[in-house]
Amino acid sequence: MVGGERIIVLGGDGFCGWPTSLRLSREGYDVIIVDNLSRRKIDVELGCQSLTPIQPIETRLRVWQELTGRQIEYHNLDVANDYQELEQLIVRTEPKAIVHFAEQRAAPYSMKSPRHKRYTVDNNINTTHNVLCAIVESGLDVHLVHLGTMGVYGYGTAGMAVPEGYLPVKVEVDGVDHQLEIPYPPNPGSIYHMTKTLDALLFFYYNKNDDVRITDLHQGIVWGTNTEETLLHPSLVNRFDYEGDYGTVLNRFLVQAGVGHPLTVYGRGGQTRAFIHVRDTVNCILLAIKHPPGHKERVKIFNQATETHRVNDLAELVALLTGAEVRYYINPRKEALDNELVIHNEQFLDLGLNPVRLSDGLLYEVVEVAARYRDRVDLSKIISDSRWRPEIPVDRTGTSIRYDALPVY
Amino acid sequence: MVGGERIIVLGGDGFCGWPTSLRLSREGYDVIIVDNLSRRKIDVELGCQSLTPIQPIETRLRVWQELTGRQIEYHNLDVANDYQELEQLIVRTEPKAIVHFAEQRAAPYSMKSPRHKRYTVDNNINTTHNVLCAIVESGLDVHLVHLGTMGVYGYGTAGMAVPEGYLPVKVEVDGVDHQLEIPYPPNPGSIYHMTKTLDALLFFYYNKNDDVRITDLHQGIVWGTNTEETLLHPSLVNRFDYEGDYGTVLNRFLVQAGVGHPLTVYGRGGQTRAFIHVRDTVNCILLAIKHPPGHKERVKIFNQATETHRVNDLAELVALLTGAEVRYYINPRKEALDNELVIHNEQFLDLGLNPVRLSDGLLYEVVEVAARYRDRVDLSKIISDSRWRPEIPVDRTGTSIRYDALPVY
Repeated sequence: MVGGERIIVLGGDGFCGWPTSLRLSREGYDVIIVDNLSRRKIDVELGCQSLTPIQPIETRLRVWQELTGRQIEYHNLDVANDYQELEQLIVRTEPKAIVHFAEQRAAPYSMKSPRHKRYTVDNNINTTHNVLCAIVESGLDVHLVHLGTMGVYGYGTAGMAVPEGYLPVKVEVDGVDHQLEIPYPPNPGSIYHMTKTLDALLFFYYNKNDDVRITDLHQGIVWGTNTEETLLHPSLVNRFDYEGDYGTVLNRFLVQAGVGHPLTVYGRGGQTRAFIHVRDTVNCILLAIKHPPGHKERVKIFNQATETHRVNDLAELVALLTGAEVRYYINPRKEALDNELVIHNEQFLDLGLNPVRLSDGLLYEVVEVAARYRDRVDLSKIISDSRWRPEIPVDRTGTSIRYDALPVY
Repeated sequence: MVGGERIIVLGGDGFCGWPTSLRLSREGYDVIIVDNLSRRKIDVELGCQSLTPIQPIETRLRVWQELTGRQIEYHNLDVANDYQELEQLIVRTEPKAIVHFAEQRAAPYSMKSPRHKRYTVDNNINTTHNVLCAIVESGLDVHLVHLGTMGVYGYGTAGMAVPEGYLPVKVEVDGVDHQLEIPYPPNPGSIYHMTKTLDALLFFYYNKNDDVRITDLHQGIVWGTNTEETLLHPSLVNRFDYEGDYGTVLNRFLVQAGVGHPLTVYGRGGQTRAFIHVRDTVNCILLAIKHPPGHKERVKIFNQATETHRVNDLAELVALLTGAEVRYYINPRKEALDNELVIHNEQFLDLGLNPVRLSDGLLYEVVEVAARYRDRVDLSKIISDSRWRPEIPVDRTGTSIRYDALPVY
């Protein structure tokens, strides 16, 4: 049914990109991965590595072909800079869709220094813009599927449920009432999140001026590590980030539990976040590709998250399951002590998504992976030195009691 | 009163930057111009030149010092790339304010080709972000004054008057009412305008996270050419763009009248635009510097425009004054045939701005400048080959009757 349809996956060697590429390949699409291996190079910069022993991309692709008979094409391009090569690739391969993961995606990394801030802005904006520009220049009708973040909505919205991208508003100006439906007002909480709000404006404009068909997935925090496809062979294992910059909250707790490090709760853990399992990430992207927006339709926005949880509740759950100690650290972020977060996510459920839940037992899988590879963990990398403001101290020890008077910056 | 206070003017060699630098210098500020001369280099690329014979920046500054005894420091830096030099300049000079004109500012130029689109995005976003990042890194309390555009609001707003940057809205989500005041929803009409909406998000974020004090001036179309200061000596003359990419509508009509070219109305001229004389640009920037936002105050937004006019009315006015012929050309832009535009601009008036009006006689000054330098005009450059979509033809001849059935793209 999808035989011979080509899909370019930008960032197809990364944490979400790799399992997505395998799933699309298995589904019958001819997958073309574009990746400059920047995430692996950042590992080198930070002096750490994936918890799981990921193989070089060439090995991954060779093993995949041996196992399944499916070939995945690979190009080492820097999409932010190698514009001509990107445009030629699109013209040559005439893809049905381009899935765009090719951005620096860690908020703490984006806050480390001026160099990291500037790299994140420069890389993410030029990558997204180059893709849009090349699609227009190709003259082809290519559906762009972009991995965005729930973080564009801000850390919680004062009890107002977050609709999927657009907000109907009433406006009174000079005594006259107007009704508008506007893109949800962005409220980014880091340089990284800011780049995703910039992306949204690029999408808005290229959709309006050039009729590019675009789906923007506002994804929650991804947890878990393997999918059906990455489990097929040890050489296909997905990457897993446990350190302070790239390790996201639930996965980080599970690894900490697996290696005997205290769970690192920032502040008093009152932050509510949205979550999704990596298996659902892969399913959602497949659904998004199969249900593109129509011609002349505005940018289609999905909230790609299946549950919301308060950080402290997750810490207590992981502690209960594993016996780990919970510790409270000065929050390196500038954010409210507590926030509510209620999200709409009916669109993917209506398309048939059957979500993996925290309660489905997959938490144990992650703890087990962590325990298996515990010799690969560098405990000194668990606390990041990134902070949102220079006056916020780096807290390497934390406190064992939930200290509500922990300083907030 | 302002003696010894330093102001950095980024883009201080350009059409708005140069007269602003002179005015600030005359006002007693120690002005530091940063400019990579990109606008002069684009003249070289396009094979055209300012209508007025502008002098090299070194000559300009030498003559200014001879006339007034006031020294203006000059640095040839590329703000989008020379980050370290910019940060060191800020640390060394401890400016009270930075005025930021350092962006590619022509919508038609931004639409010419992928290279022009990509240059505009890369240059404008990295410039703005580098300035913000360097201000934060310097640890100094520097007020950033940015030249934005009325174009961020879109080409007209369906009869809704445009407030100065923020919009009070009522939102009903899941049956619950909320009241918010949100940044005015952006609706850019070209790649250039899009970059200014991206800038606004950079400002929003750096103001929120780092308490940077920022004023964003949503400027209308500037007309006129000289100010009191640029008139002091022929070597101080301001640049004047008449060609199809950088020449803006009213000035372009006045030059066309001065050199005997038909007035180039796009479509049927139903576009309503906001205008401001360059003398008021300079006055507004001085007012913005003298009235910065307070600490922890949100980004201050002014609508920097003094009148609105329909393009066709301006063409008829110029034709009446000069006897010029009006011609109607296929619109290279993707926009509505007609639009209304009602703007709020009370903030600058409340601060004492006494605007120059079209009716004040300064229209003649521009026609006179055009007639004086008519030998410098290359008539072949008046029609631009830029267009918003590849299927829009370049119309070099137009039609002499207001042809309401002119194709719209």
